[in-house]
Amino acid sequence: MPNFALESQGARVIADLSSDTHWTKERTWNILDILTYNWYSEKKHRTVIQGRPSLNPGECWPFKGDQGHLFISLSHPVNISHVTLGHITERQSPTGTIPSAPREFSVYGFTTTDDKGVFLGGHVYERDGPAYQTFTMPNPNIGVFGYVKLVIENNWGEKNHTCVYTFKVHGTIPT
Amino acid sequence: MPNFALESQGARVIADLSSDTHWTKERTWNILDILTYNWYSEKKHRTVIQGRPSLNPGECWPFKGDQGHLFISLSHPVNISHVTLGHITERQSPTGTIPSAPREFSVYGFTTTDDKGVFLGGHVYERDGPAYQTFTMPNPNIGVFGYVKLVIENNWGEKNHTCVYTFKVHGTIPT
Amino acid sequence: MPNFALESQGARVIADLSSDTHWTKERTWNILDILTYNWYSEKKHRTVIQGRPSLNPGECWPFKGDQGHLFISLSHPVNISHVTLGHITERQSPTGTIPSAPREFSVYGFTTTDDKGVFLGGHVYERDGPAYQTFTMPNPNIGVFGYVKLVIENNWGEKNHTCVYTFKVHGTIPT
Repeated sequence: MPNFALESQGARVIADLSSDTHWTKERTWNILDILTYNWYSEKKHRTVIQGRPSLNPGECWPFKGDQGHLFISLSHPVNISHVTLGHITERQSPTGTIPSAPREFSVYGFTTTDDKGVFLGGHVYERDGPAYQTFTMPNPNIGVFGYVKLVIENNWGEKNHTCVYTFKVHGTIPT
Repeated sequence: MPNFALESQGARVIADLSSDTHWTKERTWNILDILTYNWYSEKKHRTVIQGRPSLNPGECWPFKGDQGHLFISLSHPVNISHVTLGHITERQSPTGTIPSAPREFSVYGFTTTDDKGVFLGGHVYERDGPAYQTFTMPNPNIGVFGYVKLVIENNWGEKNHTCVYTFKVHGTIPT
Repeated sequence: MPNFALESQGARVIADLSSDTHWTKERTWNILDILTYNWYSEKKHRTVIQGRPSLNPGECWPFKGDQGHLFISLSHPVNISHVTLGHITERQSPTGTIPSAPREFSVYGFTTTDDKGVFLGGHVYERDGPAYQTFTMPNPNIGVFGYVKLVIENNWGEKNHTCVYTFKVHGTIPT
């Protein structure tokens, strides 16, 4: 299935409409870090839409707490039939558990960046499932959307932050 | 099969003897873009010989129109037995079709950058085939070549540009 | 199995306690090269712990001769049960052989960077085996180690240099 949330194909994260990146490690901030902060932060957001062939622990976009959202400009306006959410598996995790993985999430479609949005579907990312989990959006004909908002409602227990590794949006270009 | 057109192994694209990169998206060119134009352009050429484990739509070297060529300095002079051409599949493409994929192509071997070249073989990249398609060069003993020129004769219908994702050259080092 | 020698997860190479990088190709050194030498050198060391999904010939950390070592700060202190050493296969190699691959090697655990270290196990990387070879460390309960030293004792015949592509450390975080 083609992926319309792929950076190389023209998709972009709209950082101003997304949760901030949360720096999970203590950092000593120097002047160069501060000047490049926005650049680094956006680079982290972008990880989610870069279609990486494999996932390594830590190569994710982290946000603070267990609720956050990501607003994506798709490469093409489409009818959305499925989405895929990716995270490292429990087996890959150093602790054998993945408390910072997304749990319940919702997906909204937008035709412009400032309309109200249409609810497309909500699902649960299973913590004992495969790395990439694909979910059906029940009404692909509800509309054609150039933007998608992924809302993470909670995670698998980590209070400090949540990690989003990969998000894909599948569907068809209207004819 | 080893690949002698692999950058990490010492192969290089000779940009001066290759078609120019075609920028498919409209860009606003600022002074920095212009200063770094050659660098970006060569970076695009290099994509073709970097042996990426997976192909994402758009991560290709685009040239203008449907005819173009790429001149590669191989990592070792070799007898050439096969070449591999790679492109995203129809299934991966947002539109379900790949009109900008190479169609008919020819391969020439060179011992220096300014000799006339020897025709090694011509083939068709099938649009409904797998991403990576490998082709036999019928006369591996015709010569030992340190350079290869890939000539794309036409594509699958896109008038504006053609996209080359991956090219590999297989063979044996003469003993 | 989780990998505790993974950069994205927090592991680091301690370059001062590791063999120097050996530049296998002749280079013309300009002033910029000299200024960035240490940066490049450390970048090469880091290749080994970046968990790349595929190995390309030349994308390794090379050291001079056939004996060398790499000192790694793990992402977590662990009981070490296995290690994995990776190299391109004979089939991938341009020459069909891999004389610069590690052959006999030993692994030591450390709790600080300046203690004496504990021998964990020694093995042979087989030159006609798969790219990634995993080895058992016989006494995982011998201690909890935050640092690991990989010592390459010899290689498969190349006198000039040895190439280390990937090294992984597996085990469990003590409860």
